[in-house]
Amino acid sequence: MNLIETLNWRYATKRMTGEVVPQEKVDNILEAIRLSASSMGLQPFNVIVIDNPALKSKIQPVANNQPQIVESSHLLIFAAWANITQEKIDAYLDLIVSERGVTPESLAGFRKSLEGLLKHSKEENYHWAARQAYIALGTGLVAAANEQVDATPMEGFSPEGVDELLGLEEKGLRSVAFMTLGYRDVAKDPLAFAKKVRRSTEDFFIRL
Amino acid sequence: MNLIETLNWRYATKRMTGEVVPQEKVDNILEAIRLSASSMGLQPFNVIVIDNPALKSKIQPVANNQPQIVESSHLLIFAAWANITQEKIDAYLDLIVSERGVTPESLAGFRKSLEGLLKHSKEENYHWAARQAYIALGTGLVAAANEQVDATPMEGFSPEGVDELLGLEEKGLRSVAFMTLGYRDVAKDPLAFAKKVRRSTEDFFIRL
Repeated sequence: MNLIETLNWRYATKRMTGEVVPQEKVDNILEAIRLSASSMGLQPFNVIVIDNPALKSKIQPVANNQPQIVESSHLLIFAAWANITQEKIDAYLDLIVSERGVTPESLAGFRKSLEGLLKHSKEENYHWAARQAYIALGTGLVAAANEQVDATPMEGFSPEGVDELLGLEEKGLRSVAFMTLGYRDVAKDPLAFAKKVRRSTEDFFIRL
Repeated sequence: MNLIETLNWRYATKRMTGEVVPQEKVDNILEAIRLSASSMGLQPFNVIVIDNPALKSKIQPVANNQPQIVESSHLLIFAAWANITQEKIDAYLDLIVSERGVTPESLAGFRKSLEGLLKHSKEENYHWAARQAYIALGTGLVAAANEQVDATPMEGFSPEGVDELLGLEEKGLRSVAFMTLGYRDVAKDPLAFAKKVRRSTEDFFIRL
């Protein structure tokens, strides 16, 4: 399947069979998410990986009781950093120094760009971090489909409820999106055979 | 190349050769972006496609004079809807009715979900729309790499400057991200051979 066929194959799966996704496929999807692009490479978010049925059951009520939460094999929660701190920036610069074998001095200009984020409000940085998480969500959806694993991107949950349940505030995180992984239940999902609806190229693209 | 190799191959290219990307590859990348997931499928953004060198030169000064703007083959500008309107929602529901051959009545529940957006502030809807555009940005970056086309996701521009230059406000749009398409100039781009730096799986994923 080429990428266009893969993207046409995927859809936001509303009912899943409960079948477990093989670890190798999960690992490939997670690795694609980890390799995803982010502004300045900072990756200002974490991804919470949940395969524990009891915990998924606890999350379901704060996610509009949607069935795919408990019918999924894995639930991924994309959680943006609630703020960008000097400590986070320093840790990232240290990582570059050790990974690339460069001097901290050679990163002075880049440090300045990163530290520009510290002038923004906490709320601005949160919105920015959330956007970076959404790039990874996009990458993860492609990666899942590429493994022929179904996935549901979800915003239909209470971020406050999820954050409280998982203690995310203490971790400096705010939940922004879910992605379930599993297999479509074609007998129960009315959207399994629905035609994909997208705006036409003429409406969607503006050519200048 | 499998997807993980493809993602390791890509990087945010800072210098491009000016070589033109074949139309078939551009079309595949654009189609992947058009097929990208969005919340409720609304696609609350447009993508502006620019291959006109004169226009790219005009945009460069409002994008920190970054060279890849003019060295690219194509510049894509992801522009979020400035607001969600009843008109936009109605147009989307009409599209579903015609594409799927269903009755408007059968979409009553879905209409209610979509119209829930009308209760949010303009700024909240803009932030939401921007996030959806970033899913497509993530999809587009994978699609470009899959075509062995280099790409640069960019936020380093003045949204106000770009919006004014391209008359986006009148179109109800706000620029949120750029993506250049082209080919890396390995002689000029110091990052062409830099090791990719990503947080470790232990740091990035939280397993619950």
